[in-house]
Amino acid sequence: MLTASPGAAPAFPPVLDDVVTPAVLIDLPRMRARVDGMAKRASDAGVGLRPHAKTHKCTQVAREQLEAGAVGLTVATLAEAEVFALAGCRDVFVAFPVWPSAGNIAPLLRLHDQIELRVGVDSAEGADALAQVSRGGSPLRVMLEVDCGQHRSGVAAEAVHHLARHCLALGLDVRGVFTHPGHAYVSPDAVAAAARDEQRCLRVGSDSLRRLLDVPVEVSGGSTPTAALRPFGAMTEVRPGTYVFGDAQQIRLGTVTAADVALAVAARVVSRPRPGQAVLDAGSKCLSSDRPSWMNSFGVLPGWPDATVTSLTEQHAVVHGLDPDVRVGDVVAIYPNHVCTAVNLAPELLVLSEGRIVDAWTVDAKDRPSKRAHVSSA
Amino acid sequence: MLTASPGAAPAFPPVLDDVVTPAVLIDLPRMRARVDGMAKRASDAGVGLRPHAKTHKCTQVAREQLEAGAVGLTVATLAEAEVFALAGCRDVFVAFPVWPSAGNIAPLLRLHDQIELRVGVDSAEGADALAQVSRGGSPLRVMLEVDCGQHRSGVAAEAVHHLARHCLALGLDVRGVFTHPGHAYVSPDAVAAAARDEQRCLRVGSDSLRRLLDVPVEVSGGSTPTAALRPFGAMTEVRPGTYVFGDAQQIRLGTVTAADVALAVAARVVSRPRPGQAVLDAGSKCLSSDRPSWMNSFGVLPGWPDATVTSLTEQHAVVHGLDPDVRVGDVVAIYPNHVCTAVNLAPELLVLSEGRIVDAWTVDAKDRPSKRAHVSSA
Repeated sequence: MLTASPGAAPAFPPVLDDVVTPAVLIDLPRMRARVDGMAKRASDAGVGLRPHAKTHKCTQVAREQLEAGAVGLTVATLAEAEVFALAGCRDVFVAFPVWPSAGNIAPLLRLHDQIELRVGVDSAEGADALAQVSRGGSPLRVMLEVDCGQHRSGVAAEAVHHLARHCLALGLDVRGVFTHPGHAYVSPDAVAAAARDEQRCLRVGSDSLRRLLDVPVEVSGGSTPTAALRPFGAMTEVRPGTYVFGDAQQIRLGTVTAADVALAVAARVVSRPRPGQAVLDAGSKCLSSDRPSWMNSFGVLPGWPDATVTSLTEQHAVVHGLDPDVRVGDVVAIYPNHVCTAVNLAPELLVLSEGRIVDAWTVDAKDRPSKRAHVSSA
Repeated sequence: MLTASPGAAPAFPPVLDDVVTPAVLIDLPRMRARVDGMAKRASDAGVGLRPHAKTHKCTQVAREQLEAGAVGLTVATLAEAEVFALAGCRDVFVAFPVWPSAGNIAPLLRLHDQIELRVGVDSAEGADALAQVSRGGSPLRVMLEVDCGQHRSGVAAEAVHHLARHCLALGLDVRGVFTHPGHAYVSPDAVAAAARDEQRCLRVGSDSLRRLLDVPVEVSGGSTPTAALRPFGAMTEVRPGTYVFGDAQQIRLGTVTAADVALAVAARVVSRPRPGQAVLDAGSKCLSSDRPSWMNSFGVLPGWPDATVTSLTEQHAVVHGLDPDVRVGDVVAIYPNHVCTAVNLAPELLVLSEGRIVDAWTVDAKDRPSKRAHVSSA
């Protein structure tokens, strides 16, 4: 076994020789420190913490976050909401412009009745469809999505007034505004600028809403990079996801140090075909192909800070800069660039504490097929 | 429902409105035409067809390939080999430099005893380890990996002699040579050049081996792009994978036309936040982030050939160039850039024939956790 160059800090717990690679490992004490640290940060700032569960999709991790004081969970899909509701979470926000298709209406209404469910909306058409399916029952609780600069979904802050009036006229239960400052994911400087955009747009949007509502307005923001900064401005809650583990991208953005990252892929050197090059058995079906244009590697090897994962194919990672004494058969740790997509590819999460595997957690909310109802009798 | 611009050819069967999106759909008649077409191509050329099952990981698809005349299957991992062996395939080649770790030895030896299993090897260390675990039993059947230009794993063709002598001295059952011309994945011109490299390296490698062995030598090559060209030179078998469905990358490489692609993702327009832009609910957790540097889109929309998927996040695809009359709530089809990684993310494959869903296939060989043996009692 060989997990670090002689000069490098031991940046992840020992990676076990006999594990079937690739394997996704969690350092439990580090994860708990990250969960508690973000809970304290939110609590000190007087905002609610609603972690984005898309990062882990794992009920055990969610339980740790809720026990540490999270006010509820954020998810990206109704299928994820179903899994976490079933596991006991009573307050879930689907931070996505949900469209009620024929196959989604039943779980949507069931969740709405059973828990405090909020869903995102960013268009008149979406609002119309949501109002249509809840007609006759209690109105769906919605959050209006504001675009603060990522230019993905969401309306301009100045258009919140118009969308809110439309939703209110339809009888929807408008609860607040939310945004995702995804344009932070470039550099530490971009994080600071995106945090300012986020605060400005949430303030403008929530001010519009306050003029229309006579109940408190929820103001929901906060990616992992911007949640690492303060103050939180008008926000009443923050929704970081990646913070729970950290990853190579977050190291580069400055929100975590390599010594605090709580999840790594254990991969085996399966080939050293030419000088300076190694091939590991963790490819894009394990690490995911996520590599922002401003990163030159498909992951960070904490034991070998000068190593670069120069290319990935499905089952192979080509690495340059690994020390020559790392041999075929050795196991090394890699921090994925983007932990959310890597976890989504993991069959399970092996949980390490004090150097040994103490548990294996299922990625519960991954891949639930909810489409069988549509299969005609074959 | 709206699946194509008025001017576009209907390039995929009707996409159903009420399916829970994103969903992965297979056009069964098209898939069967692709399976039969490649079987005929190989048969006409007098080479065996050993489809790479990493593309579909699905026993139903494998069955169709074997019934159409495939000599066996190729897989990338022992876990995949186990699934297909269990489903009745008696001849499986793991085209990867397999390392027998503590957790892998039992399935490796079991498969070796039960079926015609071959595994890849490309180093003396790997050969030593394989010989070590099979000591006392019947020798493992190995194929020597040759690098023909991708510069991933594999030895130079000229080094086959040396590696083969090492393997034979260890008592391994050396069966042949194999290569993967992955450097074809650039352009139609690169495909032709890579096919020449593939043929040259396989000829040099197999000639070396023939001088050491007095049994017929297996010569295994053939990615989907190079398998679309002939002649096959010294090859005794070809191992295309992607051909079974086709994808956006194969369209660009010229190995399939949009009208013949057999797999699409059904995605819903969930937002039209600004002129010219649409957001679909199929992100990197569905399509995968695979985008070679020579492609400018994360997929092809067959109904809207001018549309570009300009960015993906986990649950969102941002599309430019979709006609303005495609509205929020509409469902569109997308061909993923790389079908292998998209299928690997699918909870199931919905099978369409004559415009309706006739079956739902499981992606059987995906994600089998085989690590629980390593969990200490918690």
